[in-house]
Amino acid sequence: MRSPQGFHNGESPSPHNRIPTPHFHNTVTLRKLKRFNSLILVFRVTAFTFSLASSVFMVTNSRGSGSPHWFDYDAFRFVFAANAIVALYSLFEMGVSVWEISTGSTLFPEILQVWFDFGHDQVFAYLLLSADSAGTAFAKTLRGTPTCTDSNSFCVQSDISVALGFAGFLFIGLSSLLSGFRVVCFIINGSRFHL
Amino acid sequence: MRSPQGFHNGESPSPHNRIPTPHFHNTVTLRKLKRFNSLILVFRVTAFTFSLASSVFMVTNSRGSGSPHWFDYDAFRFVFAANAIVALYSLFEMGVSVWEISTGSTLFPEILQVWFDFGHDQVFAYLLLSADSAGTAFAKTLRGTPTCTDSNSFCVQSDISVALGFAGFLFIGLSSLLSGFRVVCFIINGSRFHL
Repeated sequence: MRSPQGFHNGESPSPHNRIPTPHFHNTVTLRKLKRFNSLILVFRVTAFTFSLASSVFMVTNSRGSGSPHWFDYDAFRFVFAANAIVALYSLFEMGVSVWEISTGSTLFPEILQVWFDFGHDQVFAYLLLSADSAGTAFAKTLRGTPTCTDSNSFCVQSDISVALGFAGFLFIGLSSLLSGFRVVCFIINGSRFHL
Repeated sequence: MRSPQGFHNGESPSPHNRIPTPHFHNTVTLRKLKRFNSLILVFRVTAFTFSLASSVFMVTNSRGSGSPHWFDYDAFRFVFAANAIVALYSLFEMGVSVWEISTGSTLFPEILQVWFDFGHDQVFAYLLLSADSAGTAFAKTLRGTPTCTDSNSFCVQSDISVALGFAGFLFIGLSSLLSGFRVVCFIINGSRFHL
């Protein structure tokens, strides 16, 4: 595999042109690239919104001292933790994306950035799916118990939180596809640019 | 992207040599290739063993008419189904792997084979993780109930089944890494060969 550190920040995306030219990309290429980065940003924002909403729904799921509290259940703690981690990560990645769109360069060195994005997307997608599956199984079990018959709103709010978590998983999964595509582009071209 | 159908079954893995030569690979390359394919086969066999063991442990988890039965619980049905699917898929992929090692060619056309393997590995890894997480959450909930105090062996056997499922997930995840690597090789070289 070629050592790609030399081709950084769009200076020389093609192996056929080895002399660094700061304005190598023409307008059409740059527009397409901006569209690709904007799509990643949209997925990041959506993943952030859903996982933040999920964790907020879970953390506010308590009805005073006499009724059940989300913190008493392991599975719900797992749902909250996973969604909070993904929300924080998505917020960071939103910043990275905005930085890349506005300056045209990556925050970290390019090789680090593409692998960082892809690796974290994959791991956090697995984490979120695991937490939400555990949450679903537990919420389903709670349904038949006095916890839900006495305090139905507690169970409904848990269900909503888990469902929002699954939506967050969908969008971090989509982000993972795009960042995987960027890794492949990087391996092929020695640059994250796909064109 | 190059159209790679022409370079099939190891005839011409390098774009620098466009004339098909049946014995292009030298002995060292072929040995390395065989080692890579053997590693995939080992992961497939291990994933098969664990997921088959997990589904067998789950399906035999019943102690007569008076005691609990795995089929009565959604989460355990999900664990069984996911593990059985992964076991069947791994069995098929073991056959594919043995075929490739013995004949040197892929069962399906090469482009289809690499994407089929990678796509299914990814989806089944997610499926298995989801089922096992749900199974864990449910098994944990059962712990405090009369089901487990009356029939402890039922709960222990469920726990073992879920744990075996997680081991299966680990190995299908590793297979997914290797098949992802083959996809990248295929995109770069127009062939699944990495050398």
